[in-house]
Amino acid sequence: MLKSQSVSQFLDETASNSPAPGGGSVSALAASLGAALGSMVCRITMGKNPNVTIQIELESVLIKCEKLRDKFTSLVDEDTKAFKKVIDAYRLPKDTEEQSAHRTAAIQTAFKDATIVPVLLLELCADAIALLRIVSEKGNKNTLTDAGVAVLMIGAACEGAVLNARINLANITDLSFVEVNRIMIDSLQSTVNNSSHQILFRINERLFSY
Amino acid sequence: MLKSQSVSQFLDETASNSPAPGGGSVSALAASLGAALGSMVCRITMGKNPNVTIQIELESVLIKCEKLRDKFTSLVDEDTKAFKKVIDAYRLPKDTEEQSAHRTAAIQTAFKDATIVPVLLLELCADAIALLRIVSEKGNKNTLTDAGVAVLMIGAACEGAVLNARINLANITDLSFVEVNRIMIDSLQSTVNNSSHQILFRINERLFSY
Repeated sequence: MLKSQSVSQFLDETASNSPAPGGGSVSALAASLGAALGSMVCRITMGKNPNVTIQIELESVLIKCEKLRDKFTSLVDEDTKAFKKVIDAYRLPKDTEEQSAHRTAAIQTAFKDATIVPVLLLELCADAIALLRIVSEKGNKNTLTDAGVAVLMIGAACEGAVLNARINLANITDLSFVEVNRIMIDSLQSTVNNSSHQILFRINERLFSY
Repeated sequence: MLKSQSVSQFLDETASNSPAPGGGSVSALAASLGAALGSMVCRITMGKNPNVTIQIELESVLIKCEKLRDKFTSLVDEDTKAFKKVIDAYRLPKDTEEQSAHRTAAIQTAFKDATIVPVLLLELCADAIALLRIVSEKGNKNTLTDAGVAVLMIGAACEGAVLNARINLANITDLSFVEVNRIMIDSLQSTVNNSSHQILFRINERLFSY
């Protein structure tokens, strides 16, 4: 599993001439880093702010951030697996008509699976950004830049997921699958983008307006 | 060293209630992931494109990407160290006037060092984005989404570095240091942002315009 590798090893493997792990796994890792920073802000704030309402609210946000972090980290591996499935499908024999039909079907299934992973990443990014809105509003002022970096990581992960989902969709012939996913991608992308901009604007306002 | 930790451990430590590693180290890691993807695109393209001019150009870009990746990875640790130095300075005794003056000076030095790390990250992000422009123009079409994610990681790292640099600058009383750094930050931020948008626009154009 990629998450068991050292940070250096993961970077080396990314930089190698093997296409996986690539942009999809890196996007999922960025999201995981964003969720981790969200958890950090919750924990630090809870340790410093005795207000019971904030304690209870952040405890619940923390639990959700940690669940999301776990899912994001799983997607680091899932994306690499889904990508390899596409490569494997392309390598299937196509000498007979039957083989060729089987190969085409396998390629289509693999591309669908390789679309579902970044679309799931996008959905989870939308969940994460909703949590980070609370984190950035209730978080201790000393951790606001961390909340900001969390938002930036989720934002970058979202855009990476959009690129990966769209490139896989471009290879899929099932038009209803394409249409449903395209609508979902556009909607999730604009949710995450709009929220990110709003939250970062507020963070900058809280930090730098005197 | 943080890079020797497993990906899981690094995420756990980020998510913990200790403020370091925090947003600064995560930004540096995002940049390192971006440089790693840049190297991957170079290597894959060089393996598939026999054109000698492209081979020579990408070989040179690859060497520079790998050097940058190394520097970015060092900054993951540097940022955490610089942050801890600020905390240590605040913990110095301030019982006598002499102690108080020494503590104030140590805090100022620590904040300057903690500013220099993200400003260096920004400078290196500007170098990286210049390389990624070449990578995205010369890279194999199958790796264009990876080049896109590389740009997204550098873009997020840049914005994270800006947040961290600005929050540290806000604590520094040496106005000429503040002014010089503020000008540099603004200029580097707009360089990276403008280039990122242009490159991502071109990537989307190459990938999705038929």
